[in-house]
Amino acid sequence: MKTIEPQHVDDLALGAVVLGTGGGGDPGIAKLMLRQALDRHGPVPVVAAGELDPDGLVVPVAMVGAPTAGAEQIPNGGEAAIVLRALEGRLQRRAAAIMPVEVGGMNSLLPIAAAAELGLPVVDADLMQRAFPQIEMTTLSLDGIPASPFALCDVRGNQVLLDAVDNRAAERLVRATVAQMGMTALAGAYPHTAKQCAQSAIPGSLSYCREIGKRVRAIGESEPGAYGEFLEFCRATIVFSGKVVDLERTATGGWTRGTVVLDHLTEPGRQCTVHVQNENLAAFENGVPRVTVPDLISLLDIETGTPMTTDGLAYGQRLHVIAMPAHERWRTPDGLALAGPRAFGYDFGYTPLEAAR
Amino acid sequence: MKTIEPQHVDDLALGAVVLGTGGGGDPGIAKLMLRQALDRHGPVPVVAAGELDPDGLVVPVAMVGAPTAGAEQIPNGGEAAIVLRALEGRLQRRAAAIMPVEVGGMNSLLPIAAAAELGLPVVDADLMQRAFPQIEMTTLSLDGIPASPFALCDVRGNQVLLDAVDNRAAERLVRATVAQMGMTALAGAYPHTAKQCAQSAIPGSLSYCREIGKRVRAIGESEPGAYGEFLEFCRATIVFSGKVVDLERTATGGWTRGTVVLDHLTEPGRQCTVHVQNENLAAFENGVPRVTVPDLISLLDIETGTPMTTDGLAYGQRLHVIAMPAHERWRTPDGLALAGPRAFGYDFGYTPLEAAR
Repeated sequence: MKTIEPQHVDDLALGAVVLGTGGGGDPGIAKLMLRQALDRHGPVPVVAAGELDPDGLVVPVAMVGAPTAGAEQIPNGGEAAIVLRALEGRLQRRAAAIMPVEVGGMNSLLPIAAAAELGLPVVDADLMQRAFPQIEMTTLSLDGIPASPFALCDVRGNQVLLDAVDNRAAERLVRATVAQMGMTALAGAYPHTAKQCAQSAIPGSLSYCREIGKRVRAIGESEPGAYGEFLEFCRATIVFSGKVVDLERTATGGWTRGTVVLDHLTEPGRQCTVHVQNENLAAFENGVPRVTVPDLISLLDIETGTPMTTDGLAYGQRLHVIAMPAHERWRTPDGLALAGPRAFGYDFGYTPLEAAR
Repeated sequence: MKTIEPQHVDDLALGAVVLGTGGGGDPGIAKLMLRQALDRHGPVPVVAAGELDPDGLVVPVAMVGAPTAGAEQIPNGGEAAIVLRALEGRLQRRAAAIMPVEVGGMNSLLPIAAAAELGLPVVDADLMQRAFPQIEMTTLSLDGIPASPFALCDVRGNQVLLDAVDNRAAERLVRATVAQMGMTALAGAYPHTAKQCAQSAIPGSLSYCREIGKRVRAIGESEPGAYGEFLEFCRATIVFSGKVVDLERTATGGWTRGTVVLDHLTEPGRQCTVHVQNENLAAFENGVPRVTVPDLISLLDIETGTPMTTDGLAYGQRLHVIAMPAHERWRTPDGLALAGPRAFGYDFGYTPLEAAR
């Protein structure tokens, strides 16, 4: 993928919902924004970190807040320029490229739209190879690269530039600020060099996202064997197939939190509960943890393969709960300390998806 | 007053508690900080706005947050330089002088200590001629001057630079941020020119504060007629004399909130209730509003004249509730819209202290 063009948008959006594991915001709005940006400014060059000047400044961009709020306060498109200008002003240098912070939900598409508007290439990489709810949960954090300076801008034009003492402090400050920004804001953070990007970001995330999207689309187009091919490509497992019988979602403290309960379609007595903090954090079967962060949990329509955001869930939907192994960087001791079950307040450790099979 | 020297500190601190109307933080700590700064850097030049180059940049400085928290997280002294550097960086110009945002509690002394450390003069003025709990409640707001860029720094070194669309949005963002900064942070805000300062700030507030302090000290030294002279100088009235029988204080959402109830010393059945949001907002007698913002309500020990911060209150204290008329700028329609009773959520309008006598 050398450029991103309008015909790539649908597949990117479908893949983004799978990798978004329920979170990352509504890709429907991001699709419209990206299409508009591509129409106006033309295709966006896609680069690998290694193709940039090693000293070039890479600026990761993302929407921060509660995805439910993001659907109601549509970015006005000027935020990316404001955020970039704030970081460039602080660092006294120009950006060489934009990058997604995470490759889930809105946040795989919005950085591309931002790159189009700003006339910059986008790096085919991200900092999670999924979506995580907290902004310190990045591979740059693991390698000691600060999230600050951290720029935020809301739809009304309020701007905040943070310099936090560490990335956890940044998360607390950002979350509190975003709660006052109507629960959603555009962020530019973790400014770093292309050399650091090549070392610490996860390469190929946008291409991976698009490839997943292609395979999900094939399910919807009823291609024979499409579900199996999709699962194989993602190294994914169906851990439960059920009907949504209970659904609880609240937008609180800058997050969408909730639980989804599914009854098994064919085996009475089997029940699956998925915990949500923007993203799907853990899936339990009859109270026993089956899959947890950092592994990915996504909900897909059994018939059409349509991947579901948390906001798109409804009573009665018949869904596969699929699990995908996290990128290997998250399965290391420091990766698990930052984004494993205990980091989210669970009192149990991580068991790799494959071991629990 | 051409300079501020160590021998001025006690009187400034005493006056600051009176004008702080219960809030503005513990001047005890600020006294220590100011003494140390004066010892280290020498006397601080005091200037009138009109003595500065009209284009000179004046930076108001204050501690923001819950005064109760300020007593536990002592500023490390480096915050002022960080805050000033952030504003100067954003505005691409150097500051000519420091100024108090408010002349109550810590906040009349800390800006002087900051000026000493930064090697700058302090303007003998403030933006309230009292303390108010919300940062949009300034005479600069009344004249349309933005609070942004607004810089914050906490004791751990977390920094935030805000550009809010208006001063009420600034208040919301600052309050949420400060709640994550352990409820207290140093702020530099409302950067403005000396010309704007001469037009919109309240002149002479530091001198006024010191003169009040002198007269309060005379009460403590049992000078005959001292109480009367103090009251006359401040145009103050004793509206109630009672004993503290009930006291409720919480530090919540970035504020100290509470109520103080006093039983009259000699007339059974008369009871006075004072509402607190950092500062004393309103005094009621048997449920009827007697004095309200923007007029000043201060509590002073009946014997010694010692003015009380909200944090210093205790059951059984015998106190005068005194009321002082607000600066005339606050008694105008726009002044009352910004800082009158309804601005604090009361469902009644403002009656000047004198009219209720």
